[in-house]
Amino acid sequence: MSDLLTQELNVVNVGLPAFADNIRAAGGSAVQLDWRPPGGGDAGAGMRLARLLAESRIEEANAVALGRCLEAQPVLVDVLLARDAIPALEERRILHAGPPIAWEDMCGPVQGAIAGAIAYEGWAATPDEGAALAASGEIALEPCHHHGAVGPMAGIISPSMPLWVVENATAGNRAYCNFNEGLGKVLRFGANRSEVLDRLSWMGNELFDVLQAGVRALGGVELRPIIAQALHMGDEVHNRNAAATGLLFKRLVPALLELDRPAAPVRRVIEFVAANDHFFLNLSMAACKAMLDAAHGVAHSTMVTVMARNGVNFGIRLSGTGDAWFQAPANPVDGLFFPGYGVEDAAADLGDSAITETAGVGGFAMAAAPAIVQFVGGTPADATENSRRMRSITLGTNPAFTLPAMNFGATACGIDARLVLDSGILPVINTGIAHREAGVGQIGAGITTAPVACFLEAIEAVAAQAPGA
Amino acid sequence: MSDLLTQELNVVNVGLPAFADNIRAAGGSAVQLDWRPPGGGDAGAGMRLARLLAESRIEEANAVALGRCLEAQPVLVDVLLARDAIPALEERRILHAGPPIAWEDMCGPVQGAIAGAIAYEGWAATPDEGAALAASGEIALEPCHHHGAVGPMAGIISPSMPLWVVENATAGNRAYCNFNEGLGKVLRFGANRSEVLDRLSWMGNELFDVLQAGVRALGGVELRPIIAQALHMGDEVHNRNAAATGLLFKRLVPALLELDRPAAPVRRVIEFVAANDHFFLNLSMAACKAMLDAAHGVAHSTMVTVMARNGVNFGIRLSGTGDAWFQAPANPVDGLFFPGYGVEDAAADLGDSAITETAGVGGFAMAAAPAIVQFVGGTPADATENSRRMRSITLGTNPAFTLPAMNFGATACGIDARLVLDSGILPVINTGIAHREAGVGQIGAGITTAPVACFLEAIEAVAAQAPGA
Repeated sequence: MSDLLTQELNVVNVGLPAFADNIRAAGGSAVQLDWRPPGGGDAGAGMRLARLLAESRIEEANAVALGRCLEAQPVLVDVLLARDAIPALEERRILHAGPPIAWEDMCGPVQGAIAGAIAYEGWAATPDEGAALAASGEIALEPCHHHGAVGPMAGIISPSMPLWVVENATAGNRAYCNFNEGLGKVLRFGANRSEVLDRLSWMGNELFDVLQAGVRALGGVELRPIIAQALHMGDEVHNRNAAATGLLFKRLVPALLELDRPAAPVRRVIEFVAANDHFFLNLSMAACKAMLDAAHGVAHSTMVTVMARNGVNFGIRLSGTGDAWFQAPANPVDGLFFPGYGVEDAAADLGDSAITETAGVGGFAMAAAPAIVQFVGGTPADATENSRRMRSITLGTNPAFTLPAMNFGATACGIDARLVLDSGILPVINTGIAHREAGVGQIGAGITTAPVACFLEAIEAVAAQAPGA
Repeated sequence: MSDLLTQELNVVNVGLPAFADNIRAAGGSAVQLDWRPPGGGDAGAGMRLARLLAESRIEEANAVALGRCLEAQPVLVDVLLARDAIPALEERRILHAGPPIAWEDMCGPVQGAIAGAIAYEGWAATPDEGAALAASGEIALEPCHHHGAVGPMAGIISPSMPLWVVENATAGNRAYCNFNEGLGKVLRFGANRSEVLDRLSWMGNELFDVLQAGVRALGGVELRPIIAQALHMGDEVHNRNAAATGLLFKRLVPALLELDRPAAPVRRVIEFVAANDHFFLNLSMAACKAMLDAAHGVAHSTMVTVMARNGVNFGIRLSGTGDAWFQAPANPVDGLFFPGYGVEDAAADLGDSAITETAGVGGFAMAAAPAIVQFVGGTPADATENSRRMRSITLGTNPAFTLPAMNFGATACGIDARLVLDSGILPVINTGIAHREAGVGQIGAGITTAPVACFLEAIEAVAAQAPGA
């Protein structure tokens, strides 16, 4: 003790920074540690979390859930109209991104997209009449995730839209995602005028017909190897899909040219795919959904199997808590805006595409795609740091997906809600930024995080199930 | 001085390591510096090099040469038969890779490829008769580089072969390269049996016809942006061209489908390109050749404008020394062999593809393509280190080509023969390894360096031109 008082003062300070300031002012050296009590600072939650962290039943359940996710082999097996893929869409029903939300609470782009989909289906003569119909409550509005599906941004799926059908060859579960419309005025950003609806009609007819025939001719396209290769070619398969789209295109084109179809429609389909570097995104999402659905439903597991946003709230689901959503207002996006737009124009974080981060790619694989970090104002070193940091909140890593910039280390996989709360490290998500008004479209891109309140609520639910609760 | 004798001993030792060992044995600390006298240890050469390093006339010439290379805009403008692109090929003449070499001195793969090309041209009934004809001296055999052309491995160009025509839009000079045949039994590795010649016939007819029409319909494809993008997608555009081929494919396919041609040949061409991840290599080489030819012929410049191998010797040319070749036996390749093969099976380093390194990509851009370093047994950190090291022997960097792994730093560009000798750092080259016998094909891949003797000889030639000589 006498040593302690005579030696030079080297202090690590936790809590109020003023203590460190005083030591420095007195000539000592002090490091301010950025630490918060686990469980979001709530002593009761902290204690419950501590108990859950030690529970072997949860550890075992998590090992099962992560194993099912890693063993999943997502294969593109078919293209179907939504009504033929999802029984609930035999009726007048529209699916949207994120957790459940009532029409009147929805943000502009989602309302606009639903109104457009209603006009596209012919349930109303115009999008404005479609909006009135939706407001009347006559059309059921439900999350894509309630039907094994996902959709980017507004994430609208209506009965006549074509869907990618991805099957997990290991467990047999299927996942669905709509088709990517390209950039500019598109339904997923809430645009719903005639050029948008005309494109949807073409997609629901010619594009559907040709791609269905092509995918069936290919007899199943394994998506895991395409994603793995794309991660070595600058994609993180969320905000950047240029390489994956190219790899798919090279597989698809020869098959389409072998079809017994007139040349013109095949050519139009090929030109449509060639012109859209994001075309693979919707397949990446369906693949991730198929992997995560395999991990869902393991009793007591705290593994996160869904992260999704409806433009107002961010919602998560855990493998062991069934159909429950744990929601909180979406965090702001730290991003760069296209010229002429700013944060006041932005809709809240939106879309099911965070399924990619939930599966360990996207923002979790930023090290694969330094070009994106540059686009949002960071450096390649930031990208690698993000990918490394995500490992501290996951149950493991996915050896199928490796990152060259991290010496071919595996991507973090299987977010554990307990570890998020224990470390205070939030899952990072790459995202586009939609204009708050329907139809303006994308106005920027950036990085955001899942809100901690979702994880707190989820862990409270797990604690309530736990034996000592 | 008294201080020096009393303080702790910290020694940097240059030369015999035994001096450092003795200091360490006596309890001192010593760093052994790996240094050799510039100019390859020849005192006279060292002095001449020192004089050249200080010469303003050379500095100015090098600035002009590098500037022309950086300003070059290689554009794919046409596809032509060799006899229509290169006047010398209106006669019975065959072009090969590397510096000039007589038939009897050529390695197996080059002899095999020439014999095959003679049979393909119909100048002899069989490859064996072709070999006899070549041995008779009746067919002129000349380097591709003597005719503005390049070719990978054996690098054979005969009059009826189709060529990529790449024009530097800035200065108007044109460069040519043959088409990539794919992997397996191919002419560029010396294979010359019927499957090889049949494929060449198809390439000289259907492939030529469709690609010529497609390229003309596209009206010029700028290659610099494709290379720049591919460098962000895991290619170094020498040993790895998967991304660049995909980018070209996406540009090419819609144009080919718009052609007024029967569906079957177009389909076969598209399938041929889709099946070969190296298809872009020959365009990368032609682009680099167009950039470097723009830099050639600046009096007094010591910038290297050609590095090429004929399977026996490695040869270089400098911008300021006209048509002269400076040659030395090729260095061995530090690589990994396919199962069943070893170094005793390998031909010496072969091909004009080192034109990519001469232009600052390939081995100079290894940081772009960590997958290659893994393939040849290294780590991504080695790749970045290689790219960084090359900057110490180049006149500058190319802002058009950037490397994500180096925080989007520009690639080294414009090898200065003086700096190679002054630093002792040799240009690194990524290369495939051919079997020494004609037709076996590729048996490995690896990294090699340009031999220092070429640069010594080149600098002696420059010194002989210098005012004080």
